[in-house]
Amino acid sequence: MTKPKMFEKPSGVRDYLPEMVQKLRYMEQQTLHCMSRWGYAQLITPTMEFYDTVGTASSTSDHKLFKLLNQRGTTMVLRSDLTAPIARVVSSLLVDEPLPIRLSYHANVFRSMEEEAGREAEFYQTGAELIGDSSAEADAEVIALSIACLQSIGVEAFQVAIGHHSFLHALFEHLLPGDVEVQQYLKQCLLQRDVVGYREHIQTLSIEAERIEKLETVLRLRGKRDVIEQARQLVPTEPAAHSALHHLEQLWSVLESYGVDSHLMLDLTMVGDFTYYTGTIFEGYAADLGSPVMSGGRYDNLLQQFGRPAPATGFAIKTTRMLDMIELQAENENVPILVQYDDNHRSEAIAEATRLRNEGACVITRRIVREEQLAEVDQQNLEALHWNGRRLKRVLTFADCIVS
Amino acid sequence: MTKPKMFEKPSGVRDYLPEMVQKLRYMEQQTLHCMSRWGYAQLITPTMEFYDTVGTASSTSDHKLFKLLNQRGTTMVLRSDLTAPIARVVSSLLVDEPLPIRLSYHANVFRSMEEEAGREAEFYQTGAELIGDSSAEADAEVIALSIACLQSIGVEAFQVAIGHHSFLHALFEHLLPGDVEVQQYLKQCLLQRDVVGYREHIQTLSIEAERIEKLETVLRLRGKRDVIEQARQLVPTEPAAHSALHHLEQLWSVLESYGVDSHLMLDLTMVGDFTYYTGTIFEGYAADLGSPVMSGGRYDNLLQQFGRPAPATGFAIKTTRMLDMIELQAENENVPILVQYDDNHRSEAIAEATRLRNEGACVITRRIVREEQLAEVDQQNLEALHWNGRRLKRVLTFADCIVS
Repeated sequence: MTKPKMFEKPSGVRDYLPEMVQKLRYMEQQTLHCMSRWGYAQLITPTMEFYDTVGTASSTSDHKLFKLLNQRGTTMVLRSDLTAPIARVVSSLLVDEPLPIRLSYHANVFRSMEEEAGREAEFYQTGAELIGDSSAEADAEVIALSIACLQSIGVEAFQVAIGHHSFLHALFEHLLPGDVEVQQYLKQCLLQRDVVGYREHIQTLSIEAERIEKLETVLRLRGKRDVIEQARQLVPTEPAAHSALHHLEQLWSVLESYGVDSHLMLDLTMVGDFTYYTGTIFEGYAADLGSPVMSGGRYDNLLQQFGRPAPATGFAIKTTRMLDMIELQAENENVPILVQYDDNHRSEAIAEATRLRNEGACVITRRIVREEQLAEVDQQNLEALHWNGRRLKRVLTFADCIVS
Repeated sequence: MTKPKMFEKPSGVRDYLPEMVQKLRYMEQQTLHCMSRWGYAQLITPTMEFYDTVGTASSTSDHKLFKLLNQRGTTMVLRSDLTAPIARVVSSLLVDEPLPIRLSYHANVFRSMEEEAGREAEFYQTGAELIGDSSAEADAEVIALSIACLQSIGVEAFQVAIGHHSFLHALFEHLLPGDVEVQQYLKQCLLQRDVVGYREHIQTLSIEAERIEKLETVLRLRGKRDVIEQARQLVPTEPAAHSALHHLEQLWSVLESYGVDSHLMLDLTMVGDFTYYTGTIFEGYAADLGSPVMSGGRYDNLLQQFGRPAPATGFAIKTTRMLDMIELQAENENVPILVQYDDNHRSEAIAEATRLRNEGACVITRRIVREEQLAEVDQQNLEALHWNGRRLKRVLTFADCIVS
């Protein structure tokens, strides 16, 4: 254990300087406003939750949770997602609210292990949860909303991949009945997009060639709506798989009504990385980024852990991951006006600053005590007006001839 | 150690339901926007900081800090204020930026012991820091800005009390030279507004009657500008006290130029509760609340702890403490339109919902499968249109005669 250097901050956490804050705030406001127009009301929950309730209900593995003790010696965690805290609130403070309930949030979440891998230990998410509706309509709504949110921050080149937790499970159970270990191994390959490992492993299995071929075919279950029919033919007699495919078919139809199908693909090889997912799962990929910028899915069993059984679906946009993709328009830039004055003109200068601020302008005031301070801002060259490292829109000077 | 009950959250932390979130967000946006118009740029710093740097530099006493260990075994704290983290950033990432630097923030902070006393262990603050300017002009700017921020959220009945850290110190040292213990005791009485305890204690001191009378007179150093002259007469020969009073005199003049003197009072009995304060200190009191809703002051020695010596002043508004004072205008309320449809009219209903959302309306969509669902919303009584516990602005129905 070495003493950290002065000025150092813990690894995996960030300072956001003003330019980045502007982007982060812009994304936060646009997405929350979008969610609000879809009827989602915003919640804020505490940073700390009890380990025994929300900590264990969250989908984050135990070693990734930041833990601390409160004064009574009870273990608390820094929240690792907002879905479990929201399930807690829906089951307690909001227990008398009729379902469906639509909620949104913007919050920082914490994952301990990530710092080792150079990933973020604290990052921001903006998300929505639709609780109390098990229909394909509800899944479609949150997917369409996630797309509207991405569009609201100017992200246009993206794809949303849709899979189904139960389909893959039913398919593997059909082709490899009872062989949980192999099923798990293959799912792990799919989760890590390790197609080579998947192919190599199925060749080693002592099962009939037809099954191996079907397991191979699974890898091709990615595309547009016709993937559903291909999947159906792969398991013509498996009711759970068919039920999942029927749900996806309905979902796709509703999403066509939303007019967002050009952004969609079906990916039946998708394995949701959250342990609480039960049905439809989805992930959003932006053109330039390899890892998903948004993910979500159905979690019909989580609410019952908090005593109010209800189906639910939702998503979270990984706001901080998209910071570098966002370009702010110039009108969002707040270039200040400098109002400078000597002691004889303070009141009129401050009155003018107040007037300009009331009109919405950004104004910095500056008292001048020596004449040479006037020359520090080059008033002739309005194209490149700078003072003290800051670009300026205008300079207003209220001063007599100043004597030092 | 008892296992917490299901649904429970740690004591001292809160869930903010949508109505409260609206208020909190309104205060956050208004004050940050106000600060931005005064040239203050927003920073976001991490929730966790190293104990050895920011933790010890903060003004929070050690037993009130939430501590946790990172993977390497280094002690971290949940930030207890933003002043110390901002000092860290100004001295590291912003080290090449010329002074003065104007920064703002809105953030949650953590104080561990408060939960025992039923106070909040996590709460929100919105604040500003002006770094690199030691003038009375700078103190006046942050005080005037704090007033503008309170006004921006509709708080009009408030007073800002202004004191001076060095004045009180110099006065006590003058009247009770070297007697640090008594000085500390008297300051403690003033901090806790225990006038009775203060009066009782000075009567027990073995000092000349004139000094006791002067110590008694200190309690009357509260009022408008003329308090400065009264204070001067109390210590006619004490240079440090006079220097502080001269600074306050200048400060008052500048604040008159801002036209905010009707909100001001001088309170030379004020003892700043932050250990890092060095000069002017101030606190804002709103009409209905006993404890301050805003506090700030000058801290000229903090930055040097991070390797970039610079004078600084700033304040924080205790945003959460004012939640109950804020009344939102009705136009901020987002009453939704309900768009309901049967399967034959889904596309046109969703198209209409999208159109309305693009116009800025809040729209909830609902699929109807049985005719009696139509009767759930009373369309005749538009004065009291409700569905599912939610007030509605309008209902649009896209359906044939529906057969279950």
